[in-house]
Amino acid sequence: MRVVVAPNALKGSLSPFEAAEAIARGVLAADPRADVIKVPIADGGDGTSAVLSAARNGSRRETIVPDPLGRPVRASFGLLDGGRTAVLDVATASGLALLEPHERDPLVATSRGTGKLVSAALDAGAETVILGVGGSATVDGGAGLLAALGIGLLDSGGAPIPAGGGGLSRLARIDLSRAHPALSRVKLRIACDVDSTLLGAHGAARMFGPQKGASPEGVLELEQNLAHFADVIAQATGREVKEVVSGGAAGGIAAGLFGVLGATLEPGIDLVLETVGFDPALEGADWVITSEGFLDEQSLRNKGPCGVARWAKRRGVPVIALAGGIADDVRPRDFADFAGMFSICRRPMALQEAMQRAGELLESATEAVMRTLLHGRR
Amino acid sequence: MRVVVAPNALKGSLSPFEAAEAIARGVLAADPRADVIKVPIADGGDGTSAVLSAARNGSRRETIVPDPLGRPVRASFGLLDGGRTAVLDVATASGLALLEPHERDPLVATSRGTGKLVSAALDAGAETVILGVGGSATVDGGAGLLAALGIGLLDSGGAPIPAGGGGLSRLARIDLSRAHPALSRVKLRIACDVDSTLLGAHGAARMFGPQKGASPEGVLELEQNLAHFADVIAQATGREVKEVVSGGAAGGIAAGLFGVLGATLEPGIDLVLETVGFDPALEGADWVITSEGFLDEQSLRNKGPCGVARWAKRRGVPVIALAGGIADDVRPRDFADFAGMFSICRRPMALQEAMQRAGELLESATEAVMRTLLHGRR
Repeated sequence: MRVVVAPNALKGSLSPFEAAEAIARGVLAADPRADVIKVPIADGGDGTSAVLSAARNGSRRETIVPDPLGRPVRASFGLLDGGRTAVLDVATASGLALLEPHERDPLVATSRGTGKLVSAALDAGAETVILGVGGSATVDGGAGLLAALGIGLLDSGGAPIPAGGGGLSRLARIDLSRAHPALSRVKLRIACDVDSTLLGAHGAARMFGPQKGASPEGVLELEQNLAHFADVIAQATGREVKEVVSGGAAGGIAAGLFGVLGATLEPGIDLVLETVGFDPALEGADWVITSEGFLDEQSLRNKGPCGVARWAKRRGVPVIALAGGIADDVRPRDFADFAGMFSICRRPMALQEAMQRAGELLESATEAVMRTLLHGRR
Repeated sequence: MRVVVAPNALKGSLSPFEAAEAIARGVLAADPRADVIKVPIADGGDGTSAVLSAARNGSRRETIVPDPLGRPVRASFGLLDGGRTAVLDVATASGLALLEPHERDPLVATSRGTGKLVSAALDAGAETVILGVGGSATVDGGAGLLAALGIGLLDSGGAPIPAGGGGLSRLARIDLSRAHPALSRVKLRIACDVDSTLLGAHGAARMFGPQKGASPEGVLELEQNLAHFADVIAQATGREVKEVVSGGAAGGIAAGLFGVLGATLEPGIDLVLETVGFDPALEGADWVITSEGFLDEQSLRNKGPCGVARWAKRRGVPVIALAGGIADDVRPRDFADFAGMFSICRRPMALQEAMQRAGELLESATEAVMRTLLHGRR
């Protein structure tokens, strides 16, 4: 039996690497002769860079960059393909996890550190930059990032606008003349973990602003400023960013990089599955097992397991999804790409216990499901 | 696909009938064309009579009998096979559930009401009496039951001994001369839910006395009295009841009926599976689904699901067990008679929620497992 193990992280409990080890142990407990192929995944969220680096035997580079409030923070990125491809996470330089709860304020938080990280990747000679956008603390449309790459974001007096989503209201024009020279030839691929557009109810300000610390008034200001930013971009480059799919990812970094630099916005999971070689791994596989912390409508339609199921279906390989929990309103029959979905909880237990024991529970749930599947094959 | 649904009760949440309906709904949700055979089961515990009556289209008879403290209580039994077989539960007449917690005291609680129920069954013409012994409030060795059937349990002065486990110390001799006349030809089959012997650490007094309200001193007294009862029985009938398997069931009712009346003590689950026609139901079945409130070592080695798995294995039909919870130390691989065991919990949740929503959770767990099994068959 050949089993491809392609887990997403169980956020707060297990990295995708740890989840893959736990699932692999469970498969081998059910069938010691099983051929287990471990392909940990990510979907553009926090940790995408590490997954891509590991899958392609990349090297890591470290550098010091400004965090969302301008303080120095150690950040790293991966270099694959002999340095031709760099893989970066917004979260390492501009992540919400870098701030204390009381420090969170997207009106001032800047994506500048991510720009410094991209700049370091360009300096290292990368011809392709893959940027995972999950977990950002910012709603600045990528203004800080762009400024760090030499793009002039200037007010009516020709001075740089202030940092953060609040500063965008001052933007009068965009000066591309002093941009990092490598930008003219680099391929920028943005791995997006959401498909929401820049503006509107599901956009960067209204949907994601509050969890990044924006007040109701702040959300309105951010929404106005992003709309203004979109208008200035359209004037400068001719690109309309308001309607672009996934433009709202990472506080609008996706929209900004698309609009100003022509970056491609891609579903993170597809970009990851392509880069880690998921399709070749499916060759001859009997089953795929994926995982996620919590399976709800959103994760089943957009996140890692959904992509895994879509890709595996094309090859005719059935997919089992294991999760810490499954939302009450999810009916397995509504998600026909999955051959099964099961919780790791084997009895009533508190969330805290399930999270603390996630590795062990994931292993035993895998074993239980695989034993049943083996019975079905006989 | 043909699926035999043979659930035990999920105690405190679902009767075996309700569990069967929930599982059947889950099977049909996964495969609307499935052929579902519902065979609710019991294992000698509380509810055995109802399961047997329903399976065999029995009629119910009601009567008033004394409860464990002598108060009148309405109790019923079933008549199968045109009245030739009666099915009774000790719990309906002499059950722990009939007493308030502060009333529980096996030194005085009597099985007399169950004897009245047996007597009514004999009066109705039953040639076979099947008695499910689970849930009793008594540790009187069946003395009250026997007395109600006309057996003289007499002290040294020839007077009847007092009711309850405490009265047994006064027993000097057993007078069979005035026993109910039908006892000479009736077949008494005791459906035992435990295999523990009358005496000792796992016996009727030491293992089960405390949960029936016995104090530590009371347990010692009950143990002595049961040993004395066994000696008097051996003198009267020549039957040694101390070592008989399951003699400790129902506070020693099993030992008393075996010793004094020659009743057969049978594993409850086997007696039930035979009576409900489980083996013929397996003909042509692809899967069996059973259930239990909680699967631990004990239930997996002795209770309903264990018997279901044993019987199904003989026919080569794989069995899935669904439970409210599975004990942490249970490894599915150690229970090879089961093709799989799964919890109905689909996310971290409190015990109370799992119990309140057991029907819905059991249905959706069934659907999830069956969908996966159907994928495996393709």
